[in-house]
Amino acid sequence: MNEFDLISKYFAPLAGPEGLGLLDDAAHFSPTPGFDLVLTKDAMVEGVHFPKGEYGADVAQRLLRVNLSDIAAKAASPRGYLISLAWPKSVELSLIESFAEGLRAVQEEFKIHLWGGDTVSIDGPAVFSATLIGECPKGMAVKRRGAKPGDDIWLTGYLGKGYFGLRAISELRGDRDMFYRLPPRNQLTNLLRTFGTASVDISDGFIADLSHILEVSHVSGIVDLDRLQFPLEIKNWLASDKGDLERLLTHGDDYEIIFTAHEDHRLAIEKAAADLPFNLTWVGQCGLGEGLKLVQDGKEVTFVRSGYSHF
Amino acid sequence: MNEFDLISKYFAPLAGPEGLGLLDDAAHFSPTPGFDLVLTKDAMVEGVHFPKGEYGADVAQRLLRVNLSDIAAKAASPRGYLISLAWPKSVELSLIESFAEGLRAVQEEFKIHLWGGDTVSIDGPAVFSATLIGECPKGMAVKRRGAKPGDDIWLTGYLGKGYFGLRAISELRGDRDMFYRLPPRNQLTNLLRTFGTASVDISDGFIADLSHILEVSHVSGIVDLDRLQFPLEIKNWLASDKGDLERLLTHGDDYEIIFTAHEDHRLAIEKAAADLPFNLTWVGQCGLGEGLKLVQDGKEVTFVRSGYSHF
Repeated sequence: MNEFDLISKYFAPLAGPEGLGLLDDAAHFSPTPGFDLVLTKDAMVEGVHFPKGEYGADVAQRLLRVNLSDIAAKAASPRGYLISLAWPKSVELSLIESFAEGLRAVQEEFKIHLWGGDTVSIDGPAVFSATLIGECPKGMAVKRRGAKPGDDIWLTGYLGKGYFGLRAISELRGDRDMFYRLPPRNQLTNLLRTFGTASVDISDGFIADLSHILEVSHVSGIVDLDRLQFPLEIKNWLASDKGDLERLLTHGDDYEIIFTAHEDHRLAIEKAAADLPFNLTWVGQCGLGEGLKLVQDGKEVTFVRSGYSHF
Repeated sequence: MNEFDLISKYFAPLAGPEGLGLLDDAAHFSPTPGFDLVLTKDAMVEGVHFPKGEYGADVAQRLLRVNLSDIAAKAASPRGYLISLAWPKSVELSLIESFAEGLRAVQEEFKIHLWGGDTVSIDGPAVFSATLIGECPKGMAVKRRGAKPGDDIWLTGYLGKGYFGLRAISELRGDRDMFYRLPPRNQLTNLLRTFGTASVDISDGFIADLSHILEVSHVSGIVDLDRLQFPLEIKNWLASDKGDLERLLTHGDDYEIIFTAHEDHRLAIEKAAADLPFNLTWVGQCGLGEGLKLVQDGKEVTFVRSGYSHF
């Protein structure tokens, strides 16, 4: 099967009107008047970002969800995506078919469509990249920069999906969905547009990503670790001999959202958060100066590890 | 040097305002009111799309130029791009620096900026992908579909850059710039917006790509091969023992533009073309029915080879 047949059989059915049936050189998109665009692009390499040989539906899910998380963190609504897929020459068609099914499942859940991209072969590991495009009413996208001294620090969901998800796929124990079906927090969009002063999704680790906000916003931060919420399973793990909170704070790939908001909005945010299908936790506050202080049992704690780096 | 240092040293200086210094999760772009977006994404794999080890400034040039060609073929003006770069673990920093210099040179020539993307490592060949975003006044982007029976078929420049460019880099003879510094025909944009009914850039080969237009437009085509123009060097090669016109017609990667236009506009197009820095040649005509007919010395000719396929 050549690349044209491959595209027409597996990927053209995923194309929205912007993708012109994947029969053109480029996608055509008419932006909504009065909206800004938010664009993000992430790549995944077999053996680095996901286990060797596992490039079916699961990794397609993760590829889109990771990018959807970036869009959610900016308070934008996802519209469509382009992909570049480099398949090992030995790839079986059933894996490509499965990959396309994974894309389809995410498309249906998030109401997005495939706009374009390309398919190539590689004498090496599979490499997939996706560019996701979202829209946000003009001027309402939330940046990393923008936190002010006094702002509250909020966290969606819970920390640990990155660490336990990686353990699930590398040691084959636990819930693989924590890795492959991570839930982008796109339901936060309206709340974030209304109240968010700065926002980031956790890809490098809670401490590293919150520090990114603080640094570019030129504020300091203090986080009360006792306020962090965890599902029972992780709570039990933390209370056990193996428990390691530092690991959850520094491990990347949680894809939760950290955002800041003026403290006057704390009650309004708590009220709006009642409708969300996940926890939203006030975990700390921004201040003058710089640096991130972590407090546990009323005492400052320091950690050694930082976030993940590729080089 | 970790990925953050890498990005801040080599790539952040290339970021436009939309890229927020590459310090955010996503790019922010305010589309020009009344304009549509045109988006394209292409990947390149070391050892497949460019020679092993050659991933400095040259391949960065080619990566952007190939994508700029797609944008030019749709009559859009390029605005910005996102990249995903997978570097072999053994990469030398000087190559990354050189790659960034290649990006900068193209940015300056085409007035585009880096908006975002990511950098990862790979235990295998280098893989680079770029997503390029262009704008075009609403409804004026030219698609592959749209040629009508009776329309003229036009070709920019000349065929042969793909074949001779590949020979230059694989057999180390001839002009490497034919491969790495291919000139996207973006000066054609105004003419194409005004007159073009359908358009494509030549990535799969003249015959294959013209056939793409004919098929999705549901028209036939006839091309007079005697009308094709070539620089003296290629003309001499064609007249020699080794000359092989079929090769130039079927080899991909020429990145010239084939477009169709109503025959009534032939003179107006010729007049407008006088200002272009490259040839624009009327090579044939569309008709009822389907299929592509090639004529040489007044007789129909048939060729065996088709365009390049990856699988």
